[in-house]
Amino acid sequence: MGPGPSDVHPQVLAAQARPTVGHLDPLFLAMMDELKQLLQYAFQTSNAMTIAVSAPGSAGMETCFVNLVEPGEKVIICRNGVFGDRMRQNVERCGGIAVCVDNAWGEPVSPANVEQALRAHPDARFLAFVHAETSTGALSDARTLCALARQYDCLSIVDAVTSLGGVELRVDEWGIDAIYAGSQKCLSCVPGLSPVSFSEQAVEKIQQRKSPVQSWFLDQSLVMGYWSGSGKRSYHHTAPVNSLYALHEALRLLAAEGLEQAWQRHRTMHNILADGLTNLGLKFVVAAPYRLPQLNSIYIPAGVNDAALRSALLSEYNLEIGAGLGELAGKAWRVGLMGYGARRENVALCIQALTEQLSLR
Amino acid sequence: MGPGPSDVHPQVLAAQARPTVGHLDPLFLAMMDELKQLLQYAFQTSNAMTIAVSAPGSAGMETCFVNLVEPGEKVIICRNGVFGDRMRQNVERCGGIAVCVDNAWGEPVSPANVEQALRAHPDARFLAFVHAETSTGALSDARTLCALARQYDCLSIVDAVTSLGGVELRVDEWGIDAIYAGSQKCLSCVPGLSPVSFSEQAVEKIQQRKSPVQSWFLDQSLVMGYWSGSGKRSYHHTAPVNSLYALHEALRLLAAEGLEQAWQRHRTMHNILADGLTNLGLKFVVAAPYRLPQLNSIYIPAGVNDAALRSALLSEYNLEIGAGLGELAGKAWRVGLMGYGARRENVALCIQALTEQLSLR
Repeated sequence: MGPGPSDVHPQVLAAQARPTVGHLDPLFLAMMDELKQLLQYAFQTSNAMTIAVSAPGSAGMETCFVNLVEPGEKVIICRNGVFGDRMRQNVERCGGIAVCVDNAWGEPVSPANVEQALRAHPDARFLAFVHAETSTGALSDARTLCALARQYDCLSIVDAVTSLGGVELRVDEWGIDAIYAGSQKCLSCVPGLSPVSFSEQAVEKIQQRKSPVQSWFLDQSLVMGYWSGSGKRSYHHTAPVNSLYALHEALRLLAAEGLEQAWQRHRTMHNILADGLTNLGLKFVVAAPYRLPQLNSIYIPAGVNDAALRSALLSEYNLEIGAGLGELAGKAWRVGLMGYGARRENVALCIQALTEQLSLR
Repeated sequence: MGPGPSDVHPQVLAAQARPTVGHLDPLFLAMMDELKQLLQYAFQTSNAMTIAVSAPGSAGMETCFVNLVEPGEKVIICRNGVFGDRMRQNVERCGGIAVCVDNAWGEPVSPANVEQALRAHPDARFLAFVHAETSTGALSDARTLCALARQYDCLSIVDAVTSLGGVELRVDEWGIDAIYAGSQKCLSCVPGLSPVSFSEQAVEKIQQRKSPVQSWFLDQSLVMGYWSGSGKRSYHHTAPVNSLYALHEALRLLAAEGLEQAWQRHRTMHNILADGLTNLGLKFVVAAPYRLPQLNSIYIPAGVNDAALRSALLSEYNLEIGAGLGELAGKAWRVGLMGYGARRENVALCIQALTEQLSLR
């Protein structure tokens, strides 16, 4: 019950352990076509450029920025936690100009502040924000922010690492132009892959680049030669075959449950957990309307030794909860309810273990 | 028996399917310390900066170039197959200047030509070459080339994707400065990870950079905050936990067999295969002294339909052999004998299946 990797579904672990076949084996290529369709379902998109980057979410983030942002282009970056600032670092390493819109840690991104920045910077080409901030547990209004981006002629770049599969997310309906996620959060899959999707407008922007993408490994114009289903696939890099087996199975399980049912399960488990934690006198970092069901940040009560308590949970109850990150280090815990981890038995264990351990302090 | 991913050892698949724990779990961090030692053994190095990049070999290549090469710096690149040219593309995307030394496909890199280039370009900072060219099956003399690099004040960058675990490779003794490999070849591990190692001189070069590394994800100064065993580990990206379980087990098996014993096994299996293929009248692309035991390129006999024969091997014998790549596409097959795949039963199956299928043509 940390901030991810979350519990991996046993069927996903079993799928991953199937014998490795070649990355150009007809059987494997057929699986990749299915995987693409399953990703499109999870993202609620018909974008053709929908794939899994062969590396973790941070590489998914970099994939979006290095392919889209050219030197000298301006990007409005919303920061309300660790990952917004990581976006800024990506933009600057691409030679782009980052304009930061800051909200306090634990708050969602403020659409009013974003609109102000969009007005003040009519030359901005992109608006980038984190949908579900893993470092704080705050959910931002992606639908409204993407509408603003479009209104001001910007492409939107959305971090959905923790949101995909856990809360409502509709890429096409909300007009998201570039999005990246992680395999290891609400998809109940092993860490190491990053689903990404690019809209037609984003693909056009990539095709019109004047400078080559600075990363060979993440260059989507090359990667698509392998992932595009039509005709002959050309070798780019060796696909992480077994991890892709795992992602295929995880997405198959998500489709079998139903996306909206999965969102609802996360919400239901969160409500039970939140009641239990509140009864223990624990306070949430994030105000109720913006709380992520899948990532519950709670303040560490005065007098409690952070590391000692987390260590006791791990060694005595086999239960991981996450430490605070960045500004919240030493001040908050992060309790994950992600994917296969969002189950009644986990919620009950967490409440009871905290009840027992906090009474000892 | 393709050019990789190779057969994964069953114990490696089983290790990978163990339940996922957090990337900061004490148990996992202890395993990473062991993993680092096992990598140092496999590379025959005491380099502190020895880790596995959380992405395939192509990302390992990019890790070496983006961290070491700064804009305007000159790199001598040896090209005798697909991967030398990929190195050139990496150098150019870093803003470096690539000076190419070409040898024909199937030939090893010529030390004489390299020395000529080093003399002609006294401002070169790096010499980069592929130890074992997966696209042709040629082995180059890494010891001699690295000695030349040092003599002319260059750092050496070595592609060992296909060589690690399959042929003699001694990072410290040969004076290799930066090296990257792949998990999915002679280590019998799943694809998706790239072991890398940097010498002290290479680390100094990275520390003296004037410009930031253009990739956030591959920036070794950030990555080492997580991989360095001393003191508190800081979060950089979520490690691919299950793939690292697999690599740990694969390297444990390699250490149990013994590195020199593994090199000998590859050589022994190659000799039996080469005899069998030669008896069938098949011709090797590479001259005997430079042949890689783990990657056997053979010309497709006149009149044989390339795709149809490989398809028959796959569908009727459950046997994959690789197609030719680049200049050798449609002209050669690549038969892999890598890691767990380098076994007597595979060699026998391959010879008999080719005997049967070639007699039908």
